[in-house]
Amino acid sequence: MTYELYYWPGIPGRGEFVRLALEEAGVGYLDIAKDAGGERATVRKLERMLNDASTPHPPFAVPVLKAGGQLISQTANILMFLGVRHELAPSDEAGRLWTHQLQLTLADWIDEIHDTHHPLGPTEYYQDHKAAARKRAGLFLKHRLPKYLGYFERVLKRNPAGDQFLVGDALSYPDLSLFQVIEGLRYAFPRAMARSEAKYTRVMALHGRVSQRPRIAAYLASERRIPFNEEGLFRHYPELDA
Amino acid sequence: MTYELYYWPGIPGRGEFVRLALEEAGVGYLDIAKDAGGERATVRKLERMLNDASTPHPPFAVPVLKAGGQLISQTANILMFLGVRHELAPSDEAGRLWTHQLQLTLADWIDEIHDTHHPLGPTEYYQDHKAAARKRAGLFLKHRLPKYLGYFERVLKRNPAGDQFLVGDALSYPDLSLFQVIEGLRYAFPRAMARSEAKYTRVMALHGRVSQRPRIAAYLASERRIPFNEEGLFRHYPELDA
Repeated sequence: MTYELYYWPGIPGRGEFVRLALEEAGVGYLDIAKDAGGERATVRKLERMLNDASTPHPPFAVPVLKAGGQLISQTANILMFLGVRHELAPSDEAGRLWTHQLQLTLADWIDEIHDTHHPLGPTEYYQDHKAAARKRAGLFLKHRLPKYLGYFERVLKRNPAGDQFLVGDALSYPDLSLFQVIEGLRYAFPRAMARSEAKYTRVMALHGRVSQRPRIAAYLASERRIPFNEEGLFRHYPELDA
Repeated sequence: MTYELYYWPGIPGRGEFVRLALEEAGVGYLDIAKDAGGERATVRKLERMLNDASTPHPPFAVPVLKAGGQLISQTANILMFLGVRHELAPSDEAGRLWTHQLQLTLADWIDEIHDTHHPLGPTEYYQDHKAAARKRAGLFLKHRLPKYLGYFERVLKRNPAGDQFLVGDALSYPDLSLFQVIEGLRYAFPRAMARSEAKYTRVMALHGRVSQRPRIAAYLASERRIPFNEEGLFRHYPELDA
């Protein structure tokens, strides 16, 4: 069985958290966003899948992972599924819950990062959000960025198995997602991150270690990796990076 | 083992989704928010738990469920844990993933509802959000409310086991959460809901059925149920209910 990943073309977005897990697991997958037919064909394919009236379990939004006959959506849910199958999470129940709890906290952080440029919600373009975005981004950088960075620093520090991984003594899917959040924050808020990073040495060291894992390093150097841009989750608007 | 629920006193908030599952399961639990020592004592207890440096797995925020020696946080994660233990989710993996996917979609919806009164993020008071809140609430009622209601209506309609429950032919934890979201929306946006409800007959019928389940009906009539108010997730500000 080859997995199929359904996600918007042209942006890393939420699809990227799934891609990193698939790449680290070293499993084959068909990425609909890279469909040979081009962006329009991909969007049509996505819309057909999302609106398919024969699906008993319709997804609300992409990313969607097709695994055999099963359609799985919600990023954290897809990662939980892959975590069990590809040794990207502990096998005991308490360990799996803790891993998922960290991923859901990352999901909350990601939502807050998204809302720095879309404080009025997911409809409308950035242009219509500008005034509120400046306020929200300012509050985010002042209060929320240190809160989340400090939290993950603390999780690493307290890990009884050492500070190399978030969970136990092996890589799990939230390590990969935390790597991507740091990448995205460096892209979106280079000035704020330059000021902040020194305080969170364990988080930054984890980011570095993830980037050097052989499969991740190969992926990042490949054409499969989509660069950040101003259509995605992590956007660089200099006026928001105060 | 008696569960302990840690959540802010005085508001239903995210803790209520956990309470509904515990009540429906008919299991005993100690609700820290109802602590005999009053609100101040509760807040101190919560802060002590959140800042306890000896916890190897610190929670980012409440609600937190203490189950024996295990601290579980993130609402959807707690519900997944309770779902397995108390027959509030299917026992097969595909069924459990589908159930959790629905809960995570409800979590996204809940975040968007919260942000109608807090578009600038979770810091600051409503007073400081007023102008942006009017814009965000307007867009929410126009675009997002029908999208989410229509989605859950479709899930019920497409359920191969019938439209009585979201998942299969038995109650699962997202049914309870959807009930609470409808309750909260009716409180926060009575005018918008009065206009909308007729289109989503299956969702509203599910809401009615959940409210009449013996344990839920007894809970709703009890003093344990905390009324909605303007400190919580679902707030009624007439100026946002256009």
